[in-house]
Amino acid sequence: MQNMALASGAPSRGSPHGDVHDLSSPNGARAASRAGALDGPTSGLAPGFVQGNLAILPADLAGDFLHFCQRNPKPCPLIAVSEAGDPRFHALGADLDIRTDLPRYRVWKDGALIDEPQDILKWWRGDLVAFVLGCSHSFEEALIEDGLAIRHIERGSTVPMYRTSIACIPAGPFSGPMVVSMRPFRPADAIRAIQITTRFPAVHGAPVHIGLPKLIGITDLGRPDFGEPVPIADDELPVFWACGVTPQAVIQAAKPPFAITHSPGRMIVTDIRNSRLAAL
Amino acid sequence: MQNMALASGAPSRGSPHGDVHDLSSPNGARAASRAGALDGPTSGLAPGFVQGNLAILPADLAGDFLHFCQRNPKPCPLIAVSEAGDPRFHALGADLDIRTDLPRYRVWKDGALIDEPQDILKWWRGDLVAFVLGCSHSFEEALIEDGLAIRHIERGSTVPMYRTSIACIPAGPFSGPMVVSMRPFRPADAIRAIQITTRFPAVHGAPVHIGLPKLIGITDLGRPDFGEPVPIADDELPVFWACGVTPQAVIQAAKPPFAITHSPGRMIVTDIRNSRLAAL
Repeated sequence: MQNMALASGAPSRGSPHGDVHDLSSPNGARAASRAGALDGPTSGLAPGFVQGNLAILPADLAGDFLHFCQRNPKPCPLIAVSEAGDPRFHALGADLDIRTDLPRYRVWKDGALIDEPQDILKWWRGDLVAFVLGCSHSFEEALIEDGLAIRHIERGSTVPMYRTSIACIPAGPFSGPMVVSMRPFRPADAIRAIQITTRFPAVHGAPVHIGLPKLIGITDLGRPDFGEPVPIADDELPVFWACGVTPQAVIQAAKPPFAITHSPGRMIVTDIRNSRLAAL
Repeated sequence: MQNMALASGAPSRGSPHGDVHDLSSPNGARAASRAGALDGPTSGLAPGFVQGNLAILPADLAGDFLHFCQRNPKPCPLIAVSEAGDPRFHALGADLDIRTDLPRYRVWKDGALIDEPQDILKWWRGDLVAFVLGCSHSFEEALIEDGLAIRHIERGSTVPMYRTSIACIPAGPFSGPMVVSMRPFRPADAIRAIQITTRFPAVHGAPVHIGLPKLIGITDLGRPDFGEPVPIADDELPVFWACGVTPQAVIQAAKPPFAITHSPGRMIVTDIRNSRLAAL
């Protein structure tokens, strides 16, 4: 958990020197990013509020990507889509500017990483469309509030993620395997975790698999494709959720001429309460 | 599936010879039982309507049994409890008489089976309280309607049931292990089955266990304590639901001076629609 108050040290980005940002509020967290004062992961910031994965594409690819998300809602749960060229998302935060309000970005050209800046003001174009996709932070909060222990959070590590043999449904140039995140639970807790995450379809929803990793092409749980492995006890089952790394991997594989994503772990913090994403 | 129209052959029980009972309706099924024309299992009769397990106890034990059900709602989901001495359940069917409307009963004295009659008119007493408990027929219907295949139904056999190491919470003289029923599913279907049955807490609700039978004291799935075994494929997980055999076993173990239950598979058919038991 990061310190919830952060003194700004980036006067060059328009914030008066010495500003103190309240990282427990969504607009405080965004203001800290905007001021260049926040560079770490957003996990734990603004508890109770939705954080999102970011994908930005030129308008001529946006339709296909939107179609891809519609066809693959579990890995790509759409929270909001911007108008082309408009960096604002009023529904996600009155002050929100998608070009400055994340701690760090990744800029891609023809599938290659070309920059990892703290803002994308210099990269912004009038034809860009931004997609905000739900992320697992929201459902993890609901699991923790129900008393379930999440192994990678207890260990302070990144959730283990695996490429699977489950193919996403392609749309235009976008295709590829579903990436899943894994959390081990004892059987009764696994059932409870399924019930809880079922309530949150906008943040990946219910698991896509449980218990038999080989069936989805995962041969060694100890060697995740992303993140770090976690131990699984004899009385636990691995439970697999569709993961927001899927759209990132799909965009990289499609090698669009230009794209921007968030830097791993550095999400957009919104004013939407996690509870408002509950389907029931 | 039984023939849905049945000619009554039991004029001695008050039905004119030659009556035809419509077994696709709850009151038709009850009338057939009442006339002595129905003696088989009620599975498949009156599709769409709730069927229940029956337990009848003297009033001086009824409070403890009610408490036991309250403490163990997954194996003992109460649908209705009668007034002492009153064989009617208006909420379950205007015509319903609990003494005649099941195909067959079991009468117990000090824990020993002493009679298995088609009605309990001669055994009825002014101090008896009847309990109707939800049964898995309701949630199995919901699973089938969602397109899931249920192994024991496909095979036309009785669901395999197992005594577990999960202890029920005792109340008065009533105590014992939870009995579970098992249905194998592929992992994604198991997740869907958990979601669907979560909607039906009044008929056992979500599973109590998945995937690791040894953890709940089941050492050999091929040797169920009740019912018949079913094959489990390599790509399937066993999923376990609390079972209505639990209260029957608990009553037998408590050896009350007097008790009546339904005969296995021969349930009370009610006018309540299964969909009305959905929690959401």
